Amino acid sequence: MTVKAVRALESAEVVAFFAKQGNPGNAHRTAFRHFRTDAVELPLLYPVTTEIEKDHDDYKGAIQGFYERSAESVAAHLEAGRTVAVLSEGDPLFYGSYMHLHVRLAHRFPTEVIPGVTAMSGCWSQTGLPITQGDDVLTVLPGTMEEAKLARKLGETEAAVIMKVGRNLPKIRRALAASGLLSRAVYVERGTMANTCSMPLSEKADDTAPYFSLVLVPGWEARP
Amino acid sequence: MTVKAVRALESAEVVAFFAKQGNPGNAHRTAFRHFRTDAVELPLLYPVTTEIEKDHDDYKGAIQGFYERSAESVAAHLEAGRTVAVLSEGDPLFYGSYMHLHVRLAHRFPTEVIPGVTAMSGCWSQTGLPITQGDDVLTVLPGTMEEAKLARKLGETEAAVIMKVGRNLPKIRRALAASGLLSRAVYVERGTMANTCSMPLSEKADDTAPYFSLVLVPGWEARP
Repeated sequence: MTVKAVRALESAEVVAFFAKQGNPGNAHRTAFRHFRTDAVELPLLYPVTTEIEKDHDDYKGAIQGFYERSAESVAAHLEAGRTVAVLSEGDPLFYGSYMHLHVRLAHRFPTEVIPGVTAMSGCWSQTGLPITQGDDVLTVLPGTMEEAKLARKLGETEAAVIMKVGRNLPKIRRALAASGLLSRAVYVERGTMANTCSMPLSEKADDTAPYFSLVLVPGWEARP
Repeated sequence: MTVKAVRALESAEVVAFFAKQGNPGNAHRTAFRHFRTDAVELPLLYPVTTEIEKDHDDYKGAIQGFYERSAESVAAHLEAGRTVAVLSEGDPLFYGSYMHLHVRLAHRFPTEVIPGVTAMSGCWSQTGLPITQGDDVLTVLPGTMEEAKLARKLGETEAAVIMKVGRNLPKIRRALAASGLLSRAVYVERGTMANTCSMPLSEKADDTAPYFSLVLVPGWEARP
């Protein structure tokens, strides 16, 4: 956490955070100690949508409605003159859920986005792998991408981060092999968490990976 | 700064930092208040190489020699049993000078890399621009890249960050226009610093830009 985020929490009358029913999440666990003792907690609980496919219109409708309601519940506090802090794991505007509130509220209320440390920075720092230097290109890729496209993109960059590994790991492995990068790839599971582990991807025997895992391909090939 | 970085500084007996003669730099200015009162400061002063071209072997030789000597001056303190903190602007392993020490020392001494907030996170947070969402690809590109290659890479990504803008701005503008992204591009000068400014690149009338400037092309085109 940044010092700036701690200060914001220490003065926030309301703390909002996206969470699943029954699990306030990692951001809450980390930040909780900095909440004011009289802070109002505003959990924004994701609707249960496991029965609906992610690309289905019903899912999109449900999740958009959820973001609308979430924004309005934050807006109600702001309209009452209260200061609201929204928790975010990583950096809020880098794949973060916070931005669903931001686009609905930032034009209506004074807003400050406090940048954070991204999960990928946490992972390459933990493993001590310099990711980019000099004129290296870094490409951040979702593991959900189609295999041939993933392999092509990997072949055109000095350094890469592959997010959303999970059940895409066998495909990611093949795309890395096709682009000649498998020997440089490092697998990081639950980066920066207490039960984290990491290893060269070529040494990982199985293909099971949690959602919170990623693959790093360090650049700076000219390192001394 | 992160809370973790503050704690590391508060316990460090030696604080090392890369700097230019006569200017301890932004990292020092920001972190100084957290140094121990008895901390030994170890500035690592870049050699003056303005007369030598960057790709010339003389430059490479001079800069490699400088990194070697810097690493040895840090190592001398570590060998004497002192704890050394190395300052870094942004994230140490993301285009940071720190990694020149890391590759020379991390296998010899216990080392911890504390991740930081990257300059690009600072810039997109300051401007409130969601940079990536969902399955967006983010490509971080150096403005030094050849124009046609830059245009091609810009045309193949949902979101982009162009670093090392400076005198490359006219070329960057042309590459963005060629890839159809000029209308989405935002120019940020001296991001997060007191004298920062930002504007849509299409509204920037001149082509002067300091070294500490970058161009953001936000993704998340499906935003509501």
